[in-house]
Amino acid sequence: MRIRNVKNAKEIIEDSNYIIDNYRDYRGRFKDVFHNNKPIYLEIGMGKGDFLIGMAKKYLDINFIGVEKYDSIVAKALLKLKDCNIPNLKIIVIDALELDEVFDKEISRLYLNFSDPWPKKRHAKRRLTSPIFLKIYEKIFAKEIVIEQKTDNIHLLESSIINFSENGYIIKEISLDWDSNLNGGVETEYERKFKEMGVAVNYLRVEKKMNK
Amino acid sequence: MRIRNVKNAKEIIEDSNYIIDNYRDYRGRFKDVFHNNKPIYLEIGMGKGDFLIGMAKKYLDINFIGVEKYDSIVAKALLKLKDCNIPNLKIIVIDALELDEVFDKEISRLYLNFSDPWPKKRHAKRRLTSPIFLKIYEKIFAKEIVIEQKTDNIHLLESSIINFSENGYIIKEISLDWDSNLNGGVETEYERKFKEMGVAVNYLRVEKKMNK
Repeated sequence: MRIRNVKNAKEIIEDSNYIIDNYRDYRGRFKDVFHNNKPIYLEIGMGKGDFLIGMAKKYLDINFIGVEKYDSIVAKALLKLKDCNIPNLKIIVIDALELDEVFDKEISRLYLNFSDPWPKKRHAKRRLTSPIFLKIYEKIFAKEIVIEQKTDNIHLLESSIINFSENGYIIKEISLDWDSNLNGGVETEYERKFKEMGVAVNYLRVEKKMNK
Repeated sequence: MRIRNVKNAKEIIEDSNYIIDNYRDYRGRFKDVFHNNKPIYLEIGMGKGDFLIGMAKKYLDINFIGVEKYDSIVAKALLKLKDCNIPNLKIIVIDALELDEVFDKEISRLYLNFSDPWPKKRHAKRRLTSPIFLKIYEKIFAKEIVIEQKTDNIHLLESSIINFSENGYIIKEISLDWDSNLNGGVETEYERKFKEMGVAVNYLRVEKKMNK
């Protein structure tokens, strides 16, 4: 995503009730943030938030946390949320590489929507489905990992399928022509654009049972 | 594949040295057919034979067996082979459901090229990557199953990925934009046509280690 600078991004973030800034205090007990025991679903790279805001409004029995590393992008999501009160939605501003320092066996589902494909081979490790990240995810999920991925990039899809398969994940669902609206989901900003352009959206749902 | 009747198909098959008609005598010792110990690669649904004939000419250290159930199609492949002498190529006229009665732990690789996608859900069992067939394949391979699949049909690809993944196969390679010519392979009749039409060819290579 091209990032346009947002003035006062830091101030917008500091002032928002959606941001968990003392996230290090909650490791292993993030349910306390929401004051309930509902499952916690995570999105890495939440962008401007259309997906996560839509999901949180639609699925009240789930708590959603968005993870995003760029202040300017988070600020844009927060401007959208300015006059809303969505109790089951929170945001953390961190790099996904730190996820296992923030969460501990408490996530129930992870969404990866139109993540950066990092097309060059020497950047393959940075893809959010590289073995490095799959190892991090194992630490933040409770008993079973469930990941849903959407991408327009077939090379990211190919590399994700191979990484998931080689690391003990079972591919439970795949579509090379996905429509979130027909499947109980919420479209992201990108998804809507791709649909208008006639570009196919690819979808994966993978699961891995862990012995914990 | 639309099957046009070939006159004298039965006679063409009976007269050909490429056909193994007493295949039931060779179960577990198909290497005797070739008088050597080279690995045996199988293609199910060999069609008119372009792929298998090309592979046999290209890879002399491999023995290739084509499996095809329709006399008329086999006859067409045999007409192409009429004036050739390819010692590492044989053909068996059977239904793939009988494969485990014909072979016993002796196949090293299986090719599924542009198999019938059987698009209706009630016909899903007939797809060559349905769990029924995956079970049959386990009996004909030695220690490790290796399957290479090519298809233009994204729904067959999707269902194959899920079946492979749920049945212990690891997806080692996938391409949604495959070119056999760039990858040491041989194009099939369909593949050439699809390329001319600008239709993408999908490719999968899966492996499964067995405890035997």
